[in-house]
Amino acid sequence: MFQTFDPVSDRSFAGKHLPLLRERLKALGLDGFLVPHEDEYLNEYLPDHAERLMWLTGFSGSAGSAVVLSGKAAAFSDGRYSIQLPAQVDDQHFELLMTHDVTPSDWLRQNAEEGQVIGYDPMLFSEAALKPFQKAAAKKGFTLKPVRPNPIDEAWQDRPDEPTAKINPHPLELAGEDAADKRTRIGEDVAEAGADLALLTSPSSLAWLFNIRGGDVHAAPLPLGRAIIHRDGQAELFVRPEKVTDELRSHLGNEVALHAEAQVDTRLAVLAKEGKSVLVDPGLTPVFYLSAVEEAGGKVVRGADPVSLPRAIKNEAELQGAREAHLRDGAAITEFLRWLSIEAPKETVTEIAAAQRLESFRRETGVLKDISFDTISASGPHGAMAHYRVTSATDRTLKKGELFLIDSGGQYQDGTTDITRVAAIGEPTPEMRERYTLVLKGHIGLARARFPKGTSGHALDALARLPLWMAGLDYDHGTGHGVGSFLSVHEGPQKISKHAIDQALEPGMICSNEPGYYKEGEYGIRIENLVVVTEAAPIEGGDADRSMMGFENLTFAPLERELIESELLTRDEREWVDDYHSQVFDRISEYLTEDTRDWLSSRCRPL
Amino acid sequence: MFQTFDPVSDRSFAGKHLPLLRERLKALGLDGFLVPHEDEYLNEYLPDHAERLMWLTGFSGSAGSAVVLSGKAAAFSDGRYSIQLPAQVDDQHFELLMTHDVTPSDWLRQNAEEGQVIGYDPMLFSEAALKPFQKAAAKKGFTLKPVRPNPIDEAWQDRPDEPTAKINPHPLELAGEDAADKRTRIGEDVAEAGADLALLTSPSSLAWLFNIRGGDVHAAPLPLGRAIIHRDGQAELFVRPEKVTDELRSHLGNEVALHAEAQVDTRLAVLAKEGKSVLVDPGLTPVFYLSAVEEAGGKVVRGADPVSLPRAIKNEAELQGAREAHLRDGAAITEFLRWLSIEAPKETVTEIAAAQRLESFRRETGVLKDISFDTISASGPHGAMAHYRVTSATDRTLKKGELFLIDSGGQYQDGTTDITRVAAIGEPTPEMRERYTLVLKGHIGLARARFPKGTSGHALDALARLPLWMAGLDYDHGTGHGVGSFLSVHEGPQKISKHAIDQALEPGMICSNEPGYYKEGEYGIRIENLVVVTEAAPIEGGDADRSMMGFENLTFAPLERELIESELLTRDEREWVDDYHSQVFDRISEYLTEDTRDWLSSRCRPL
Repeated sequence: MFQTFDPVSDRSFAGKHLPLLRERLKALGLDGFLVPHEDEYLNEYLPDHAERLMWLTGFSGSAGSAVVLSGKAAAFSDGRYSIQLPAQVDDQHFELLMTHDVTPSDWLRQNAEEGQVIGYDPMLFSEAALKPFQKAAAKKGFTLKPVRPNPIDEAWQDRPDEPTAKINPHPLELAGEDAADKRTRIGEDVAEAGADLALLTSPSSLAWLFNIRGGDVHAAPLPLGRAIIHRDGQAELFVRPEKVTDELRSHLGNEVALHAEAQVDTRLAVLAKEGKSVLVDPGLTPVFYLSAVEEAGGKVVRGADPVSLPRAIKNEAELQGAREAHLRDGAAITEFLRWLSIEAPKETVTEIAAAQRLESFRRETGVLKDISFDTISASGPHGAMAHYRVTSATDRTLKKGELFLIDSGGQYQDGTTDITRVAAIGEPTPEMRERYTLVLKGHIGLARARFPKGTSGHALDALARLPLWMAGLDYDHGTGHGVGSFLSVHEGPQKISKHAIDQALEPGMICSNEPGYYKEGEYGIRIENLVVVTEAAPIEGGDADRSMMGFENLTFAPLERELIESELLTRDEREWVDDYHSQVFDRISEYLTEDTRDWLSSRCRPL
Repeated sequence: MFQTFDPVSDRSFAGKHLPLLRERLKALGLDGFLVPHEDEYLNEYLPDHAERLMWLTGFSGSAGSAVVLSGKAAAFSDGRYSIQLPAQVDDQHFELLMTHDVTPSDWLRQNAEEGQVIGYDPMLFSEAALKPFQKAAAKKGFTLKPVRPNPIDEAWQDRPDEPTAKINPHPLELAGEDAADKRTRIGEDVAEAGADLALLTSPSSLAWLFNIRGGDVHAAPLPLGRAIIHRDGQAELFVRPEKVTDELRSHLGNEVALHAEAQVDTRLAVLAKEGKSVLVDPGLTPVFYLSAVEEAGGKVVRGADPVSLPRAIKNEAELQGAREAHLRDGAAITEFLRWLSIEAPKETVTEIAAAQRLESFRRETGVLKDISFDTISASGPHGAMAHYRVTSATDRTLKKGELFLIDSGGQYQDGTTDITRVAAIGEPTPEMRERYTLVLKGHIGLARARFPKGTSGHALDALARLPLWMAGLDYDHGTGHGVGSFLSVHEGPQKISKHAIDQALEPGMICSNEPGYYKEGEYGIRIENLVVVTEAAPIEGGDADRSMMGFENLTFAPLERELIESELLTRDEREWVDDYHSQVFDRISEYLTEDTRDWLSSRCRPL
């Protein structure tokens, strides 16, 4: 199993580990220390040795932080973790706060004293993340001091080793573009941005640029490391020597210099001393490097990671891979949904058992490399926690009269998937049917939209929410995120969300379409397919000089017809559902067992 | 008549005036000069003496600029003026360019030479407007030099005098908030922004803050001037002495110091020398002032004009005024539409005659202070130019089989209006009906939307466009702009548009809702009402903790039922139209002549 369900931390962590950190801070002459969730790669997926926030507090969620002072400390997370935070973190040791009530920088401003010195690890903060603390320091009159090595690493006994998974070439037929060609065009972009070279600190940028995949973290085939790309397309890759094989050396060729990861600081200092200007993405790069370049006499050019946008715009080989991965994955989901329809009404299936059974169906494809994130297997009230992650401590049995929400994905070498379906166990209530249908209307509104070139995901977000808004409802998460090609399941720069971003949806970008509705303490609904932005076929009667865009659906697995209130759908929406279901059957039935094919056929009949 | 229809410039301007400017530049040792449309107030409405771009080039549009070098020159505008620019500007003297093809800064980079000195008037550029020229200068190696006085003003013979209209108090019962109270809360906002004082350079900010109105420009009751507001609420108003009356002095009271406008520079220098920090809106303020403050040793705090947001959020007195102004104005429009329905089919009504007749109906209210912008009276193909302004040179007769678009507004002391209606003269084509109905569906989609607190106009823009998008169509202008209270008809900071802005729609903001469709060479369609953002009534079954917002309609005048293709509307949309028409009749019939009331009754029957 890729997914484990044992609690990885407990409430004793805070009491055991906070004194160890405080001792270290005292020795260093620090009055306090900032502990973000992020690691040195400002990455979503942390290797075990970088789970510093969890070690210190016991909190295992994906978004949080802590601030430690000598006499008090606070742990922070957001609304998604309002239940998990107090369950995992001992409030004898940490004040527990939600960031929408108090931000860490506000808390620090209220609690630090003038003249104090508060440490932070400059490898764990982007410029933007550090900024509110700098403002607080200026207002309150305390000092922020960068500290390396991280005092937590010194205080942490039995800290796991850093990962050293071998790095493998990613086949050209799946990548669709030769790494040398990628380096040439990214080099040109670096020049266009007015820099001599770019520093890449995101593992997924390394993976895409060099056509390589690694295995250093859970759920995404990422090689931890750094890279430098020069304007002429020559590059330098910095990774731990244990990860390098002869095959990798020969794949990279002689225009890519290989160095130990530890050497990146020295190398960057040499280049900076030569007066080179270095393109750095201030949102993705540890502040450590910005200071290092400037202190060594180089010039920092702030701009987007030059790999972000090219990586997001998939080429035809990547899209073809994604289509195939999704048919395979949709078939596994469909097998699971049929299994669930038989087993769940017996009230013997637990959330963990369901997640395990789904992973097994995916493994049975024979080509599953990993899951793309820990499955959200959430029955009844657990569904209302949009990011619920089941452990043996929270596991519960699926019961009749409840909804079961399952959000999951697979990593295949040809593509990354992410799908959410909701099943009604037994008889759903009229309210459940109405709300599911409203979410479905939003999903369809976005899926069938046509929009002009240049439109951002932010500008389309309302289409997915409007049916809920009109009913006085909404959901507190994004509508869609970018998805990588056998890379991270969350990928920028595009987003479909309430937050203003100006990135247009470009043909080839893969996004999720996942509106939802959550009723606290009762149930959760989310309908998620992945889609590709495409140039839409010309529309009869449309203006010839307006090239309209649309979405091609990637995900094929049946919706929950017991939850669809047909009368609430318009004719266009009903047609969309019938057409979608007919495509589901046509495309995935060949991958199914005979029994499941029959079952699917009845699930896919017109409404 | 407030509106005049004589051409205000001609193609001879360029040939006559360009040499005069070049002579002046030579004397000043300048190799070139930048000529924006903007004046010293970076304002939409220019007094005649500030029409420098028109004097130089002959171009009278509201968006454009010119760049003059010793051997060549170029004039720029955007897509709205692609026909007007070559009609007004002699291309023997100016290269004529559209900014979506070449921007002025790009043209300058291509045409200026290294080492040259290019002048600009620092009173006519915001920081943002100057920035692309500064980038071009850095890349190409020429120098940008601020020049005062403006060489055009020196070269311009018979330049009109600056306006000196008397400034009047705006009655408290219409303003709804005492000027002293406004000064107190704006002073607090200035302190909150971390500044000692704010410099206000927008006439509409002066008007709102001091509860005054002026008459220095066409179409908006603006007093040209500057103001300083201190954090303690004390203020200084800088206007030409000719505008000041005893009544004004007594209205302002002794916490507002009155100075001649010319003294603002000295006063600002004194404050800056004292080390004061000055809040300046870099998007609304001439760069001249930012440099002046910094050079005198003061600190510039960049932030939004502290008046912008409070001014946009109308209080109950302003909203009540707006409602009354709109009923009065809607009745005038309705009288006009009936008149048009009788006269236009005779094919004797011209665009000018229609605009004049409409202004007369508005004047007959007895309380019209001005029109709120030059009426767009556009028949047939002229309608396809979204910003068409009829002159005696372009006037044409309304013909059967054509559409007539009229976009107009009135300035009343209790409110500013802005409405667009389209009339079918004779029999419309099926395509006209289909397109009008698509525009109407977009208008309704926005009008009846519910959305959560915090939503921006940008996030709602797609709702007004979607029906057009689905048909492969769109329009190239914003969907909605803010509207002042007996102030500018275009007012920030909110907008409903494709352009990403993060300003939430707050209760009390007045916006236009004006989707359109334009078929070049044939016709134009736009349906525009003004709406107020309101907290929507709780929705049955909705989440109690989500406070949803919506729009209250302000504009009441009938839609063109001959252009509505009922079958293309959903049931909800048909209900919206019927409900709207029933409100139109109920609310404005008491203001109508009996004949018009009967006519309106038949126009307002259910679809």
